[in-house]
Amino acid sequence: MPALSQAFPASELWTLPGGLRLAFERRSGPGFAFDLRLPVGSAHDPVGQEGSSGVLEEWLFKGAAGRDARALQDAFDDLGVRRGGGVGPEATRLGVSGLLDDLGASLRLVADVLLRPDLPENELPVLTDLARQDLDSFQDSPTDLLALEARRVTFPRPAGSPLAGFAHPPSGTLEGLEALTADTLRAHLEAYGQAGAVLGLVADLEPEAALGLVSDALGSLRPGRQPGAEATFQAGQRVHVPDPDAEQTHLSLTAPGISPGDPRWLAWQVALTALSGGSASRLFHAVREERGLAYAVSASPVLLGGQGFLTAYAGSTPARAPETLEVMLAELARLPQGLSADEFRRARSGLRASVVFGAESMRARAGALTRDVAVFGQVRPLAGLRASLDALTLEGVNDFLTDYDPVSSMTIVTLGPSNV
Amino acid sequence: MPALSQAFPASELWTLPGGLRLAFERRSGPGFAFDLRLPVGSAHDPVGQEGSSGVLEEWLFKGAAGRDARALQDAFDDLGVRRGGGVGPEATRLGVSGLLDDLGASLRLVADVLLRPDLPENELPVLTDLARQDLDSFQDSPTDLLALEARRVTFPRPAGSPLAGFAHPPSGTLEGLEALTADTLRAHLEAYGQAGAVLGLVADLEPEAALGLVSDALGSLRPGRQPGAEATFQAGQRVHVPDPDAEQTHLSLTAPGISPGDPRWLAWQVALTALSGGSASRLFHAVREERGLAYAVSASPVLLGGQGFLTAYAGSTPARAPETLEVMLAELARLPQGLSADEFRRARSGLRASVVFGAESMRARAGALTRDVAVFGQVRPLAGLRASLDALTLEGVNDFLTDYDPVSSMTIVTLGPSNV
Repeated sequence: MPALSQAFPASELWTLPGGLRLAFERRSGPGFAFDLRLPVGSAHDPVGQEGSSGVLEEWLFKGAAGRDARALQDAFDDLGVRRGGGVGPEATRLGVSGLLDDLGASLRLVADVLLRPDLPENELPVLTDLARQDLDSFQDSPTDLLALEARRVTFPRPAGSPLAGFAHPPSGTLEGLEALTADTLRAHLEAYGQAGAVLGLVADLEPEAALGLVSDALGSLRPGRQPGAEATFQAGQRVHVPDPDAEQTHLSLTAPGISPGDPRWLAWQVALTALSGGSASRLFHAVREERGLAYAVSASPVLLGGQGFLTAYAGSTPARAPETLEVMLAELARLPQGLSADEFRRARSGLRASVVFGAESMRARAGALTRDVAVFGQVRPLAGLRASLDALTLEGVNDFLTDYDPVSSMTIVTLGPSNV
Repeated sequence: MPALSQAFPASELWTLPGGLRLAFERRSGPGFAFDLRLPVGSAHDPVGQEGSSGVLEEWLFKGAAGRDARALQDAFDDLGVRRGGGVGPEATRLGVSGLLDDLGASLRLVADVLLRPDLPENELPVLTDLARQDLDSFQDSPTDLLALEARRVTFPRPAGSPLAGFAHPPSGTLEGLEALTADTLRAHLEAYGQAGAVLGLVADLEPEAALGLVSDALGSLRPGRQPGAEATFQAGQRVHVPDPDAEQTHLSLTAPGISPGDPRWLAWQVALTALSGGSASRLFHAVREERGLAYAVSASPVLLGGQGFLTAYAGSTPARAPETLEVMLAELARLPQGLSADEFRRARSGLRASVVFGAESMRARAGALTRDVAVFGQVRPLAGLRASLDALTLEGVNDFLTDYDPVSSMTIVTLGPSNV
């Protein structure tokens, strides 16, 4: 087994003169992967123009730098690269992976899309219409509807904020889509630039060569803005959304968590893993294995507006939903009593393995480099992350948990044929 | 860029005396991944006992070799390994990945589960009830419902077959679950053995050491059976499933394709990639980009009973569903006219890149080794697969397409508020 320092190479982090941060990790292999994150997402849609970021991202790909929409798509496909990314609440991401020879051309295509888009106005009605179709499809998915309602209840827009915030999906709202014009979207594009942007790149290149390629392609990206939407958590809400057609009752729980950069971050991750990180986890065992209350139950950390939150979900029968909720709350309520030594050891082993496997694919690693810089302000070297996990103790985690009471401020949103 | 022979190491394929085939590929790194595929899935459920394979897989993990359910789950979690797999129509898979030191223990735990399960009868009501809840949840998902109805219409059970076939999901049917007993499930378990089973393994080990570990742990697995369910395609069916509550209309198209092992296999893959492999693909362009008819549209190959089929899906508004279907059929109908040189080049580049990236993670590679042996009877070396792609010509693909007419025997199933 190779030493960890060998398996986990060092990474580089540069800031370009215009502000773009580049996180690079060298890795041998025939491929490359990069992930460009611009800190503008649906939460930054202007109030009343919900859907701006989502529609704009599609519009950007409707032609650029003298290529029409078809030619632009063909140019990406000609390289044989795979594109990923999309628009989330906090950011817009453009990811590309392919064979190393095509890295420069791929970076230049992305630069064309961001700097030299055609933005043909005749495409706008089609794009807003597709966004409307996506919103329609939420009506056919109770879990998507619940997630949306939970956001609306838990993170409403702060009064007076010019940003639409977290209460709508990237596809927007019907009213917001109606209000979009070519001019409002062009104005919105001005925010997409180097400010707050991060590019994670993994490839078999000399670091200076990687920096050169990225500087050449993206160094002239406009300044942009980093708008920063605040997630104002509404504690203790309890809302039921009637859905007479639903067969199941769906439960969503949200509570405050630990923010990235807080020294308690890793202890929180261990606790969440013990709660919901495998078949021996507390929620899975208590809700599903022991009582058969729900086919699916889980809890996970969510980051919004730079803060960490705990969210939990279960889908149950209407008759069993009240007991499901009761058991979930009971499991969360006993967190302050701490983990057992076995639970701690298991959760830590699970996190250790996920450090190794999460770094395995170039695409995943490029995404992790980007996320690290965006969320933690630096790359977390894998060897260091592993060492931090090793340094955790049961006592340390349980000390943290003594004061971690997610239940008292929990907001609960349910959706189904009858109230829970 | 390293030579491909370096990037793509050779693999080994052995058959154990009891029949289990082991496909091994050495790869440096701190981890391992294996994927054990037993050729018994929901299609092999006995008629009238639909759900047998799904419930049995859950039951196997309810304790083994002196460990109760909780202790067994804890044993996996203690190793810090990640488990995957599950039950599909054709097979049951058990996948484990973790750190190399834990490979032997992980293989022994899987052997315990298959050979020495407790099968406690008091757990059965909970498990069948969870399966019922899963079936209930289909009612809340029009896309899942459509997939199920499409299977029912397109691949009905051959008259007289003792196997339930492809017309139900792994969770079974309400009637089938009702009929399950401890005795019927124990009898079903006799099919789970070395016959037709394949284990794909990736780890940094000498090949002989890998063979030794697997032989020690799984060499005494029972003989088992390879039941073989036939997929009898019903050509030219046209069925609408009314769903008055659905906001969208969902379309499912199925046609014959090319079977693995057929020399036309790769040409078919190229054609499917041109049809639905990226934003420049024919279906995406014609349905979504050009006409804005549907938010989601795709086509993909499916293997059932050893045969290849083409399936396509779109979700549209009820008003636009007829035009969506018309455009999809028109795109499929012009396949015999062949691809353009550009389309051919792009589709081949895309497949080439997916060869490289699909092999990147140990878990994905272990799964691919297993699939190769199960489906093609051998490991397809990546360098060879790449060479076969390079050897394809536009003329060769278009010669194949001249005779490929999926539309004339297409079966179409739709689901939504109004008929299409």
